[in-house]
Amino acid sequence: MDKIIIEYDEEPDLNEPILIEGLPGVGNVGKLAAEHIIEELKAKKFASIYSKHFPPQVLIDGGGIASLVSNELYYHKFGSPGKSDIIFLVGDYQGMTPEGQYDLSNFMIELLIKNGGKLIFTLGGWGIGRIVKEPRVLGAATSPELVEEMKSLGVEFSKDEPGNGIVGASGLLLGLGAIRSMNGVCLMGETSGYFADPNSAMAVVGILAKILDVEINVSNLEEKSKELEMVTSKLDDLAEATSDIQKDDLGYIG
Amino acid sequence: MDKIIIEYDEEPDLNEPILIEGLPGVGNVGKLAAEHIIEELKAKKFASIYSKHFPPQVLIDGGGIASLVSNELYYHKFGSPGKSDIIFLVGDYQGMTPEGQYDLSNFMIELLIKNGGKLIFTLGGWGIGRIVKEPRVLGAATSPELVEEMKSLGVEFSKDEPGNGIVGASGLLLGLGAIRSMNGVCLMGETSGYFADPNSAMAVVGILAKILDVEINVSNLEEKSKELEMVTSKLDDLAEATSDIQKDDLGYIG
Amino acid sequence: MDKIIIEYDEEPDLNEPILIEGLPGVGNVGKLAAEHIIEELKAKKFASIYSKHFPPQVLIDGGGIASLVSNELYYHKFGSPGKSDIIFLVGDYQGMTPEGQYDLSNFMIELLIKNGGKLIFTLGGWGIGRIVKEPRVLGAATSPELVEEMKSLGVEFSKDEPGNGIVGASGLLLGLGAIRSMNGVCLMGETSGYFADPNSAMAVVGILAKILDVEINVSNLEEKSKELEMVTSKLDDLAEATSDIQKDDLGYIG
Amino acid sequence: MDKIIIEYDEEPDLNEPILIEGLPGVGNVGKLAAEHIIEELKAKKFASIYSKHFPPQVLIDGGGIASLVSNELYYHKFGSPGKSDIIFLVGDYQGMTPEGQYDLSNFMIELLIKNGGKLIFTLGGWGIGRIVKEPRVLGAATSPELVEEMKSLGVEFSKDEPGNGIVGASGLLLGLGAIRSMNGVCLMGETSGYFADPNSAMAVVGILAKILDVEINVSNLEEKSKELEMVTSKLDDLAEATSDIQKDDLGYIG
Repeated sequence: MDKIIIEYDEEPDLNEPILIEGLPGVGNVGKLAAEHIIEELKAKKFASIYSKHFPPQVLIDGGGIASLVSNELYYHKFGSPGKSDIIFLVGDYQGMTPEGQYDLSNFMIELLIKNGGKLIFTLGGWGIGRIVKEPRVLGAATSPELVEEMKSLGVEFSKDEPGNGIVGASGLLLGLGAIRSMNGVCLMGETSGYFADPNSAMAVVGILAKILDVEINVSNLEEKSKELEMVTSKLDDLAEATSDIQKDDLGYIG
Repeated sequence: MDKIIIEYDEEPDLNEPILIEGLPGVGNVGKLAAEHIIEELKAKKFASIYSKHFPPQVLIDGGGIASLVSNELYYHKFGSPGKSDIIFLVGDYQGMTPEGQYDLSNFMIELLIKNGGKLIFTLGGWGIGRIVKEPRVLGAATSPELVEEMKSLGVEFSKDEPGNGIVGASGLLLGLGAIRSMNGVCLMGETSGYFADPNSAMAVVGILAKILDVEINVSNLEEKSKELEMVTSKLDDLAEATSDIQKDDLGYIG
Repeated sequence: MDKIIIEYDEEPDLNEPILIEGLPGVGNVGKLAAEHIIEELKAKKFASIYSKHFPPQVLIDGGGIASLVSNELYYHKFGSPGKSDIIFLVGDYQGMTPEGQYDLSNFMIELLIKNGGKLIFTLGGWGIGRIVKEPRVLGAATSPELVEEMKSLGVEFSKDEPGNGIVGASGLLLGLGAIRSMNGVCLMGETSGYFADPNSAMAVVGILAKILDVEINVSNLEEKSKELEMVTSKLDDLAEATSDIQKDDLGYIG
Repeated sequence: MDKIIIEYDEEPDLNEPILIEGLPGVGNVGKLAAEHIIEELKAKKFASIYSKHFPPQVLIDGGGIASLVSNELYYHKFGSPGKSDIIFLVGDYQGMTPEGQYDLSNFMIELLIKNGGKLIFTLGGWGIGRIVKEPRVLGAATSPELVEEMKSLGVEFSKDEPGNGIVGASGLLLGLGAIRSMNGVCLMGETSGYFADPNSAMAVVGILAKILDVEINVSNLEEKSKELEMVTSKLDDLAEATSDIQKDDLGYIG
């Protein structure tokens, strides 16, 4: 069996597409942000990616229908000759091994090259171990010019963050892209790292909307954010009741 | 060495065969169910599957004969032009790695396509953490039509079960089959998950007999079920004597 | 890099050679036995096997010379047209993964086929958790005829031993050989499993000498056996001093 | 994706180059030593090696620029027909699996053969579990002639050190080189094994300068060494304060 299988629903004709990746990771910030933009732009699913680097598993939906775990590709066409279209890479899984990570990211780079794309945005979270009300969006990029451009749009570049670099698809897509002459930026929303964080995802979406020069409604994510506050309050109660979670860490919540 | 080797005893000419998988898993429900049907239908072994995805091991039978660990294929011919024949996949092992799982399931899908098959039943257990006297049979399927058909035959589809999907061959055969345009159903007998459960297997066999429209005697499995009760009584005694097994879990037995 | 590399010192012309495997395992019984026979028959090294399935390591000899970890092949020619020559497979390592085990064993089967061989003896230990003064030699074989022949030469076949089959090269060479129409026997000396056991190796050598119809001096191994007794006495002292080793297990020594 | 990708900045024409490897390892002695010589000789980077055997990660530099983890190759040309040039292999990573180690080392051997090289020096640390003020440099080599030559230059060869051989690139390059008829020497500076050890690296550089017959300033490393002393003093304080580190081990410092 091939290591990676792609199944196309359609093969759209895209204008120098930008790749936006939002796979699971710290605080699921990237995934939440990408899924929100897909929803707001009404981006259209065009392909599923299956791989033996994903878990050997099917998921069952509410109707009892089983489907193989996958990543999904969506596209959005702006229909303007001067404006790049978008390919979104989302899903519930990243490759389970280092080799799997390399294979899957390389597959995406090849697909982007084939579609004439030259620019990649990867979205993620930057775990800081405590809750932040107003998360910054930190960046890393493949060229000094991109760093400057991102700074001018509100992305912060910090010498010490992230100290150990970026692990997984958000990092590899930039790294493998760069050796294929692609430009790339990773946008990381500050997050506690303790739970899914729509508030941080909102910050990332805000920046990305400016970069892409599109209007994106963030009210949905705000609702999710409110749900999150309820969840964290419950977590807080739980922590008090049971706890080997340290008081100081969660005491700050709500 | 090839990752998978198949050794044919014979290559039967089968009529649009249905694949029935019963490999080891939760409560060994699928394995017990499939082996019972093989026995009752006097299905005939026609091939052995060896793989470097299985343990590097030989088994020794009572007569001192060593044989490489394998999966086995059986067939049953109904000899009626309108009725699908059956291929059974059974054995003592599943692939030991995610990649192995994908390779082995994909191998079976290819084999089924080569034999003109279009439908797959995978059998398994659904562990619920407590003993049930009258296990339900839960289902998952690859199309809404199959879900409805299964419901009409007594299979239950529950929104929350199994919440995390189906891991291993029972899941992958459906998932990989679906992307090759095959229909599939997974039948899961409720089981505690603490030991091999012929009682749950019996429930699965009962449903499958209705689906396949065949008569299958369940008395053998009933005997095994009685043996099981003796085993669990002993386990219960053991638990009382030693125990870091929680009382509540096993106190319900017998 | 190829998964397995063989480097020939010479390529001997052998008469329907028998393969004798003695790689590390329980009590190092197989390794000690094979090395002893090599020494006694003055068998000649003819090839080294290197593999990425072995550890990424060189060994340093007393003179400071580094050499890549390997398995080694030796041969012994009887120079009699009616008598099979011998190929020995020995070394300090087995494949580190299941796939590595399969690849390496398959490589040996191919090599044996290329040399016209049809029969395999694998040597190992059968760990029983206590010291035995007069270890039995247990067997497993690939055909009922071989079982009977081995019984007549003093090998014991026991229904319950080894219950879980034989793991590693000693098992796989039989299993993979059998599906290539090769005959094979595994000889397992009873051993505690706690340390290298030349006494058990001696028992295996004794049986193998009868099977091969050769004279093999066992005095060297007896010396090693005496050294072992000293080691185990020391172990015993150690156990008394420190101990979370259970008294009952080692109290029997000496 | 290929397992290993090399990206050349330039392809220098080298005179029978010697390979010097200094990748991370015990006390980072080899890495520190190789990097120091590169700095002192003003060796020039000519290639980057990327591999799916490295972590799936990018590193971020102080300016926010992301780059894929890699090994790097440097060269130094002496510009003298009778004198071998040098290729340096350095970086922050070794292969993460045994197979990765074999692939990467084999890749370097092939590259060296292609460039006409015949001799390899691998640099490492030999951890002895205590601090040494005047570390010896221990050696291993691929021929008795090289052992003698190294001894005459101050390298020590000790029967018991290193007892278990040499694991990783420092070992494999010698081992895989030897089966391709390359000569090789591993130089190991004695080190505690508790932290990066520029003092030990200095000892290795001293020996290597004699072997290569070049002048190499060690003052930089001496500065690093002084920094190290401050670090270890702090570690010592820390050990006193917290400690499940045994007093005896670190009490010797400062």
